[in-house]
Amino acid sequence: MTYCLAIAVNSGLVFVSDSRTSAGVDQVSTYSKMQTFGIDGQRQFVLLSAGNLATTQSVVAQLRRDIASQAPLSLTTVTQMVEAADYIGAVSRQQQEKNTGGGLTYEASFLLGGQIGFETPSAYLIYPAGNHITTGSDTCYLQIGEFKYGKPILDRIIAPNTGLETAALCGLVSMDSTQRSNITVGPPFELLVYRRNSLILNERYKLDDGNVQLRELKGLWDQSLRRAFEGLPSLSWVTAGALNTGGPR
Amino acid sequence: MTYCLAIAVNSGLVFVSDSRTSAGVDQVSTYSKMQTFGIDGQRQFVLLSAGNLATTQSVVAQLRRDIASQAPLSLTTVTQMVEAADYIGAVSRQQQEKNTGGGLTYEASFLLGGQIGFETPSAYLIYPAGNHITTGSDTCYLQIGEFKYGKPILDRIIAPNTGLETAALCGLVSMDSTQRSNITVGPPFELLVYRRNSLILNERYKLDDGNVQLRELKGLWDQSLRRAFEGLPSLSWVTAGALNTGGPR
Repeated sequence: MTYCLAIAVNSGLVFVSDSRTSAGVDQVSTYSKMQTFGIDGQRQFVLLSAGNLATTQSVVAQLRRDIASQAPLSLTTVTQMVEAADYIGAVSRQQQEKNTGGGLTYEASFLLGGQIGFETPSAYLIYPAGNHITTGSDTCYLQIGEFKYGKPILDRIIAPNTGLETAALCGLVSMDSTQRSNITVGPPFELLVYRRNSLILNERYKLDDGNVQLRELKGLWDQSLRRAFEGLPSLSWVTAGALNTGGPR
Repeated sequence: MTYCLAIAVNSGLVFVSDSRTSAGVDQVSTYSKMQTFGIDGQRQFVLLSAGNLATTQSVVAQLRRDIASQAPLSLTTVTQMVEAADYIGAVSRQQQEKNTGGGLTYEASFLLGGQIGFETPSAYLIYPAGNHITTGSDTCYLQIGEFKYGKPILDRIIAPNTGLETAALCGLVSMDSTQRSNITVGPPFELLVYRRNSLILNERYKLDDGNVQLRELKGLWDQSLRRAFEGLPSLSWVTAGALNTGGPR
């Protein structure tokens, strides 16, 4: 499985991805699920992928071939983020269909984020069917893969005016919660922070399991959660206002 | 959907369940998913259910009929918790099979917990197939239904020596996280706290959405989480030890 996350706040974009791929529990590998494309000062794209690894790799290869061969339609020529999402959706379908047959499917999902010129930065979730949804002021983040474990913390912290640093930390905590509860999601984790209108991707970090700061962050978050817990009122306070439906039957 | 949780710690058992049932989004009802059985001072059982509502209701009806008719095998006659789990598994399969056919299934899962005499209290997850697993010192809780959202907080807080009050609060927080992220899980929530060797079920609470304490607990937990977040080190501290793989390509 996989867990990838794209957050779009007013001040920019945050991307977090894990690196574990598996085809059964006895075939586990490590692959980066974060790809970047762009021209510094003009346009930048970040692509996160989940699903069939052969499909996602062939989609990325096609995107790079289209850039290199100066194809009429590529990430160099699209003029809007939504056009980029359409294009990647079409390439994804094409690559899936090449191998589909005999009842087997080779589905893949993508998170695309970035900025073209001074258009507002945005993020898209591209479904296996090639269609897509984007973020909005009520929904500032998109997830693919094993998304449920890491969702509660995002729902509590992320809003359009959340700072980029807070959003990035929250993304790492969301990844940590997911990794803790699901062994198909694993390090190294990648984190990319994109500052609105910077049009460069110079804040991309790889955090492996031995990373001292990552370990300390996990430990601190664990401690903080426990302390937050200890600060809650007592159970008797909580149940004081509730109907006690127990007792003799 | 449903979210039900049973926690077994050294000092007793905690049960938490939601009350939303749905057969499609336009057919949503409220039913208690918590049933209790037993004889005060001798034996107590708590049963939480998920899955097809017709199946779970017919299972509960059969369990009650077997007690009332003084059947040779019932929750009054079983001598161990594992025997109770076997029995409920068999009744569940029987009820499912009554209606199965034409490719349709009417599956149900159960969480059973309780104590017979002065046997150690324990909890079981009974699968649709009728087989079951129990808690142990490494796994102190079992969940059925929409379990992923509420798992991270349990993984951090619950251990065999966790106090019963803390375990109950953690169960409510786990339910709150689930409800916040998934609309198929809804109030009223039921909470039952069973103290080891008490052999009575006199701490069962129903917390509806209007419950002032529940609302305050949710608000306090929200605040505590935000504060815990604010207490984390800065992003630059976290990334200081990481490999920056961005920059010119």
